[in-house]
Amino acid sequence: MQIRRYLPILQWLPHYGRKPLVSDLLAALIVTVMLIPQSLAYAMLAGLPPEVGLYASIAPLVIYTLFGTSRTLAVGPVAVVSLMTAAAIGNIATPGSSEYIAAALILALLSGAILVLMGLARLGFLANFLSHPVISGFITASGLIIAASQTKHILGIEGSGHTLIALGQSMAANINQLNLPTLAIGVSVLAFLYVTRRWLKRLLISLGTPARAADMLTKAAPILAVAITTYATWAFGLNHQGVAVVGDIPSGFPPLTLPGGDSGIWQELFLAALLISIVGFVESVSVGQTLAAKRRQQIDPNQELIGLGTANIASSFTGGMPVTGGFSRSVVNFEAGAETPAAGAFTAVGIMLATLFFTPFIAYLPIATLAATIIIAVLSLVDFGTIQRTWQYSRSDFSAMLATIIVTLGVGVESGIIAGVSLSLALHLYRTSRPHSAVVGRVPGSEHFRNVKRHAVETDPHLVILRIDESLYFANARYLENTVTAIAAGQPPLRHVVIACQAVNVIDASALESLEAINARLHDMGTTLHLAEVKGPVMDRLKKTAFINELTGQIFLSTYDAWQALHTTDDHNTQKQRYVTQPSSSP
Amino acid sequence: MQIRRYLPILQWLPHYGRKPLVSDLLAALIVTVMLIPQSLAYAMLAGLPPEVGLYASIAPLVIYTLFGTSRTLAVGPVAVVSLMTAAAIGNIATPGSSEYIAAALILALLSGAILVLMGLARLGFLANFLSHPVISGFITASGLIIAASQTKHILGIEGSGHTLIALGQSMAANINQLNLPTLAIGVSVLAFLYVTRRWLKRLLISLGTPARAADMLTKAAPILAVAITTYATWAFGLNHQGVAVVGDIPSGFPPLTLPGGDSGIWQELFLAALLISIVGFVESVSVGQTLAAKRRQQIDPNQELIGLGTANIASSFTGGMPVTGGFSRSVVNFEAGAETPAAGAFTAVGIMLATLFFTPFIAYLPIATLAATIIIAVLSLVDFGTIQRTWQYSRSDFSAMLATIIVTLGVGVESGIIAGVSLSLALHLYRTSRPHSAVVGRVPGSEHFRNVKRHAVETDPHLVILRIDESLYFANARYLENTVTAIAAGQPPLRHVVIACQAVNVIDASALESLEAINARLHDMGTTLHLAEVKGPVMDRLKKTAFINELTGQIFLSTYDAWQALHTTDDHNTQKQRYVTQPSSSP
Repeated sequence: MQIRRYLPILQWLPHYGRKPLVSDLLAALIVTVMLIPQSLAYAMLAGLPPEVGLYASIAPLVIYTLFGTSRTLAVGPVAVVSLMTAAAIGNIATPGSSEYIAAALILALLSGAILVLMGLARLGFLANFLSHPVISGFITASGLIIAASQTKHILGIEGSGHTLIALGQSMAANINQLNLPTLAIGVSVLAFLYVTRRWLKRLLISLGTPARAADMLTKAAPILAVAITTYATWAFGLNHQGVAVVGDIPSGFPPLTLPGGDSGIWQELFLAALLISIVGFVESVSVGQTLAAKRRQQIDPNQELIGLGTANIASSFTGGMPVTGGFSRSVVNFEAGAETPAAGAFTAVGIMLATLFFTPFIAYLPIATLAATIIIAVLSLVDFGTIQRTWQYSRSDFSAMLATIIVTLGVGVESGIIAGVSLSLALHLYRTSRPHSAVVGRVPGSEHFRNVKRHAVETDPHLVILRIDESLYFANARYLENTVTAIAAGQPPLRHVVIACQAVNVIDASALESLEAINARLHDMGTTLHLAEVKGPVMDRLKKTAFINELTGQIFLSTYDAWQALHTTDDHNTQKQRYVTQPSSSP
Repeated sequence: MQIRRYLPILQWLPHYGRKPLVSDLLAALIVTVMLIPQSLAYAMLAGLPPEVGLYASIAPLVIYTLFGTSRTLAVGPVAVVSLMTAAAIGNIATPGSSEYIAAALILALLSGAILVLMGLARLGFLANFLSHPVISGFITASGLIIAASQTKHILGIEGSGHTLIALGQSMAANINQLNLPTLAIGVSVLAFLYVTRRWLKRLLISLGTPARAADMLTKAAPILAVAITTYATWAFGLNHQGVAVVGDIPSGFPPLTLPGGDSGIWQELFLAALLISIVGFVESVSVGQTLAAKRRQQIDPNQELIGLGTANIASSFTGGMPVTGGFSRSVVNFEAGAETPAAGAFTAVGIMLATLFFTPFIAYLPIATLAATIIIAVLSLVDFGTIQRTWQYSRSDFSAMLATIIVTLGVGVESGIIAGVSLSLALHLYRTSRPHSAVVGRVPGSEHFRNVKRHAVETDPHLVILRIDESLYFANARYLENTVTAIAAGQPPLRHVVIACQAVNVIDASALESLEAINARLHDMGTTLHLAEVKGPVMDRLKKTAFINELTGQIFLSTYDAWQALHTTDDHNTQKQRYVTQPSSSP
């Protein structure tokens, strides 16, 4: 049972038969065709030689087949993780240098180790730190930066930098290098891909092609652009007219690599590896869960951490780069009919064959074609609609999203995520630091108690019953102190304060100290503190504390018990002062 | 009204009369006597010349009288803030150098500006990040470090470092410098202060002294130790036998100073200033609120930020150092009968007079005496009882406290606070990331719904009603997705899922996206999603979203409405399958 949990392949391999084999082979063929240009392009985006992208699409896929729980997730290099890789290792080495390639291996190993450890420690919940607005703002901003960074390849000029401003300045300075043949190829491919993406599927369907086949053919458009522009470059010798091409790629099996380097580099890459792990995991789990649900299947997020982690470790030992589950490829894999993770292993075989036999043909592939492929792919990540919807729904979520976008574009990807996460946390703490609370009174003739500001209820000038609508913990402990102290100081004849705790699931040590402080302060004012409706688990804890003995009042089972006890023990004078408040104008 | 809020002095000065004048003067006299040795000692602890402590006890007190809302808070140099000052500026300058003194001024100005800005922006809630276990662990650890750092003055040797280990190593290496006359003075004062603190009050009371007077006399013991050891050093020429003394202090008014330096220093000190501000504010507000409550008064935390901030700014312009409201001095001020903040201004006059006329007498004051005063004062901060109580009450609070203590002792004060705050936040998110939720069923014959695991209730195999006992936000959004997906995947004939939202006060953008994902996934499984008991404000927001149209099911006012609608619309076949679950063994 334990082995099956950590090796999910044992759950499906024993039942593997002819039917899923055929489906998986077909899906693998389509994903391979899609993955060849993508893997080359994302390696380039990360500043790495193109073959690194191919290597990262072989061993990691086989390993994910063993350890992953999603039946249809397509693992490999993806755009956002490649951008983060470039930003991280660009700080410590020059792109193209051997230190740069070595740093990518270290990053993949660190990221893989972090994911595996998180999985073993069942720390998948850490991904919750990344709220939806932060991740969606981050992906939109990343898409814009990636598109901007690829523009230089379309123009055939040089450019560098990891922020929009730095990229723009650097490209503007080099605009005199503009190469017209490169521009012609780049713009043609952009136009071709845009048109096929937008209209080809509809056209094919109107010509009688089945919807699914039309979809698959549309997704294969990039490989057509690759084939045509590669042939044109070779046939017309465009590489001698300044068109940059991929060039010779070593063919053969992926190399065995051993990530190494001094401990300083490992330390410098740690934060980047952590952020890459979490962003990659969140992306991967989202698409994995969505696809699984369509077939009433489930994925196990903690085992996914192990699956993605081992895939990254495999990548680092076979000349690769950080990988994760990609959105678009996984959808294609799913729609092409993949039934088991075996489709991933078959894809790896496909990429392996490509690495062995097709690399000579790739030598004439123009860089501009790859850049156009990337631009069209990432512009679908840019989602202004979500920004607008978030603005309408919640200003606080919007501000976290906006901070993420602005800092990502203007400072960098790591700072962007950290800013967004910090702001979401601060806003959350701010919200829960002022929990809803209400002074309640008795609905006449009943055992019910309602907000005195909203209902016509009985109250007693000597007794305040305060209902708190949230768990009591460090973020709101002081607010509780302030609220109770203000109520007590503002109502001089007060004798009793009752805190009604029906909504309190937890009282942490900070809130306990606040209750002790409230108890002592009320005592100094000559007022008694009582509790009511304390839940079982909360009461169990309180019983272990000195507070329970120091409490000047009692703990009542219900608010009504408290009302009866504290209200009827008052003298006749008080009874007469009792009054019914009028409902206020608030709803 | 607005002016009175920002200048609280206007609230009490117009009614100021003879009676409070006499009380305030008496309290100021006693606090002055206590503050003279303390201000010298805490300046020394911060690595600053002794007169800086005196300067920091003049202008800041006058300014706090104008802007502070506590009637009895005694502002000035305090132990923990002085330790944090030493740690912060010790990183960028050599103690005793003019850069070091200049850095203290910058730190006070930065800290003051941060406090004022927090006050104006009403950001007092940021102090909630510091949970009680973290602050109490931090103060205990700080007390231990301070005591260790002062031991070198008792022994008459040199030593440096800001962690227990570094201090210990450094002192062990210099133990050959041991000076016997210094040791004799240090140990005598330690013993004297310990004995008076422990038994003098009791002795005086048993001799017939009134309790309050006995208390005041006990608190004045340090000034007696100062007087005696200073006289002895002068009379026997101990300063020529290796006893380090305070030496010449410039007498006269505090200097006017203008904090300056390159922007690098300001940036380096920013984080330290922020932490000093927050720690100082939390300390100050706690004691302020406790004392105010004893007289049924109130303080305004946001105005306190302005009061403490302006006091620090005043300190930076008059040759001082970071200040805050001190615990022990405030209690003395309160018990000595201070009635208004005027007592603080009178204390400032007292310290001013001391600076003008008493500094020649202080020249022979042994450093060992000041060190003994500090050690006795800070050992009362070390509170192992709280550590034990926190262990018993909550393991998660205890782990945050322990992390704070260990990192503070082993790495440094800033790292200690940051570690504690990060861990409390992570633990809080972990807890709320798995909100309590229950599948509920109908209590037969009623409109009530209860947990199916705890009660004998009616259920329907086609209908699951899930009650969520927490607001839905980014930390638990994915948990909700996983929970609902798991329930739906595990119950094949399921047609309807109802999420009962009576405990949901907020649905943030992340949770909204999760609800959309749940809705879509259930739809793919052929299951309909409904909501019930959505609160008014939550509903108002949902109405603005596309989710409300995409929702495959309905929104019911009550769980019972949902049960009736979804249950009765089922066919007869289902009706028969309905069953009553047995109560489980759980309570």
